[in-house]
Amino acid sequence: MKESRNKSIAIAGAGLVGSVVACYLAQRGYQVDIFERRADPRLVGSEHGRSINLALSNRGWLPLKEIGLESEVKKLIIPMNGRMMHDTSGELTFQPYGKEGQAINSISRGGLNMLLLNAAEKAGCSTHFNCQVEHVNFETAELKFRNGRTFSADIIIGADGAFSAIRSQMQRTDRFNYSQYFIDYGYKEMTMPASITGDHLMEKNALHIWPRGNFMLIALPNLDGSYTCTLFLPFEGKNSFENLDTDEKIKEFFATTFPDVIPLIPEILEDFHDNPTSSLVTIRCFPWRNGNVLIIGDASHGIVPFYGQGMNSGFEDCRVLNKLLDEHDDNWDEVMEIFQDLRKPDADAIADLALRNFVEMRDLVADDDFLLRKKIEARLHDAFPDEWVPLYTMVTFREDIRYSEALERGHHQARIMDKVMANPNIHEDWEKLDLKAIVDQLKPQ
Amino acid sequence: MKESRNKSIAIAGAGLVGSVVACYLAQRGYQVDIFERRADPRLVGSEHGRSINLALSNRGWLPLKEIGLESEVKKLIIPMNGRMMHDTSGELTFQPYGKEGQAINSISRGGLNMLLLNAAEKAGCSTHFNCQVEHVNFETAELKFRNGRTFSADIIIGADGAFSAIRSQMQRTDRFNYSQYFIDYGYKEMTMPASITGDHLMEKNALHIWPRGNFMLIALPNLDGSYTCTLFLPFEGKNSFENLDTDEKIKEFFATTFPDVIPLIPEILEDFHDNPTSSLVTIRCFPWRNGNVLIIGDASHGIVPFYGQGMNSGFEDCRVLNKLLDEHDDNWDEVMEIFQDLRKPDADAIADLALRNFVEMRDLVADDDFLLRKKIEARLHDAFPDEWVPLYTMVTFREDIRYSEALERGHHQARIMDKVMANPNIHEDWEKLDLKAIVDQLKPQ
Repeated sequence: MKESRNKSIAIAGAGLVGSVVACYLAQRGYQVDIFERRADPRLVGSEHGRSINLALSNRGWLPLKEIGLESEVKKLIIPMNGRMMHDTSGELTFQPYGKEGQAINSISRGGLNMLLLNAAEKAGCSTHFNCQVEHVNFETAELKFRNGRTFSADIIIGADGAFSAIRSQMQRTDRFNYSQYFIDYGYKEMTMPASITGDHLMEKNALHIWPRGNFMLIALPNLDGSYTCTLFLPFEGKNSFENLDTDEKIKEFFATTFPDVIPLIPEILEDFHDNPTSSLVTIRCFPWRNGNVLIIGDASHGIVPFYGQGMNSGFEDCRVLNKLLDEHDDNWDEVMEIFQDLRKPDADAIADLALRNFVEMRDLVADDDFLLRKKIEARLHDAFPDEWVPLYTMVTFREDIRYSEALERGHHQARIMDKVMANPNIHEDWEKLDLKAIVDQLKPQ
Repeated sequence: MKESRNKSIAIAGAGLVGSVVACYLAQRGYQVDIFERRADPRLVGSEHGRSINLALSNRGWLPLKEIGLESEVKKLIIPMNGRMMHDTSGELTFQPYGKEGQAINSISRGGLNMLLLNAAEKAGCSTHFNCQVEHVNFETAELKFRNGRTFSADIIIGADGAFSAIRSQMQRTDRFNYSQYFIDYGYKEMTMPASITGDHLMEKNALHIWPRGNFMLIALPNLDGSYTCTLFLPFEGKNSFENLDTDEKIKEFFATTFPDVIPLIPEILEDFHDNPTSSLVTIRCFPWRNGNVLIIGDASHGIVPFYGQGMNSGFEDCRVLNKLLDEHDDNWDEVMEIFQDLRKPDADAIADLALRNFVEMRDLVADDDFLLRKKIEARLHDAFPDEWVPLYTMVTFREDIRYSEALERGHHQARIMDKVMANPNIHEDWEKLDLKAIVDQLKPQ
């Protein structure tokens, strides 16, 4: 073992990102201690009110493979090959996410977290639960917890989520740029149970969407045959959480806007009342490093869930950090500087993309022009797989393309597609398009 | 006295804005208690390291008049009729801020604060120093201080500055949008003393600027014949605070870039070493109201100093709040909602304008095109005083025009001026311009 790897690393946060970075670092030979403010989820179950399932895609898979968990995680996933759109008459339209074989994967947050914690402990990490960070010394890398415990490390990684205690203390230091921006929408989860025989009652290998203009319902499949449905709705206004304040109004709302869902969610009123209405925040900040402390994942870039990239971007942070440690001989001083400068534009890009994708999911996916646009882009990608890569594909399936590059190429492609779609006869003539001429516009003029 | 005015108001912060709002509310008949984390400045002197003098302009004057302090404050000011630009050869150029008689006013922060505190106490307010807010209950309007004291009010006004403790607690509530953004520049104050006879050694009725492209020095006159100079410089890079790390380099820097200043600041090295390098932040947030608590001034909209509007916009907050209490019969519930919705766009506008004005001050004021543009705009304003009002005039001298309106009209005028200045012979032909035709472009086409 290299001498530089004698360092002791403390990780704040035993969530998804904290566990993955712990696995990487323990496998490098570091002494790793993980501190978590909550109780051990393997003993008490997952916390209520957090999103129950997530969509794992390529950027998340690669790190899981690198730390040797591919086959174990595979047992937990349900591949979703595309979006299944439900209109108000119950009519279904399927739109594949990518090419044959490209899928995003529904996975239970709780199940994955427990698997990752077990893996971290197996790799030699020590876990410490019920330890809420009260104070961190950025220079000496000492942690003080609310329970009175203290811990002294060489390096601290803050992987303690969107409401990070570590970042909150960074915010009180001079010249720390920070923003938290909440969108005007909240979300509420509801459960669509399995059939009596334990089967899925809708198409299993799809992410279901009920796009309704300025709001939507989505459903992701679970292994037990159930689906977790999430209603995204404005907090205030005509159709809003504020206005759905009686059983009558809630029933009326679902009957009018999601009629095909009613028979599938028997406890719709109970779920609506019992489950919290949660808010959606984008967190941006810089720098991510202060002395011997580095924040990663949601702690440094919390994003809205509409591109399904929150967990994936956090896992990618871990992979990039590990790669930089490889390349810079575990020189943390160098690595932390390079890491933040490298990852900040990517974090900003996926934050923007995620905000923008909400409009696509709740509104555009039900739009004829939009669907045709996607069809033409798929054809361009088929004909010119390297030159023209649809934005969704770059973000979701191409872990070799940085988010910031995807955003930029996506902008460029969108401007070209705007021109293509401006053709008044595009719906009739689209199959006659000169694909080569379109792709040629990508080249610098 | 109206019954609604039996309410007890607690104000956090005995700075400039806290004292002014206290005067307004005490004069309305409220019981007002002011709590301040620092000691009483009248006993211990002003805190070191805060900006020593400020520029009071129309938006700040009007509230001071309304609370009856015009004649007292007049004794503390030095009118500055324009900018005196110093180039590297010591050559001077004077540029008036507005028309004859329009001036901004240099005033000592400490002196004004003491005057305002005395006025607040005279109006019946109770002041409580060394009371740092530890916790606020937004619904019950209870304050808990670090010294163990508690206080229960009906309404709390947080006027506790850019690093507001009240706002910091709001930030931990759900759906509170917040950003703090530091520019890459710092500032350091230095003193240019009076002559042996107590006179000013440069033009007294001017704000002096040494614009140097990406950095600058400014000087504001004090009543005692001295000037307070402020150096605005990047933290890092070629000419930067980081690089000025030896006496040699500091002397060399001043000798090259501000040669005319050297004989006027005898303790240049002492000041440079002893005075702190401070950072410059823009704070934006929303909502400003939570339950029975409202934040105003820098607490809700901290801005950079380059438009000289930090204090002025805070005083304007107090005037607008008082006007709304008049109009809404002291119904605080209504008033706090209307106040934040009304003032937020104005706060955002002046924050943007202040950031943008830094470029103007440090760079453009030494630019021929810019100076000509100002000259043409002054002529347009002379000919059409109501239709064409230069942006600086709207912000600084027209307290009847909202910041947000000034920003919008300024944009519109700038687009027209861009076209005017695009004329290749503009420097020769500008006196022949058809002013009426230019002003006509302001009208909706």
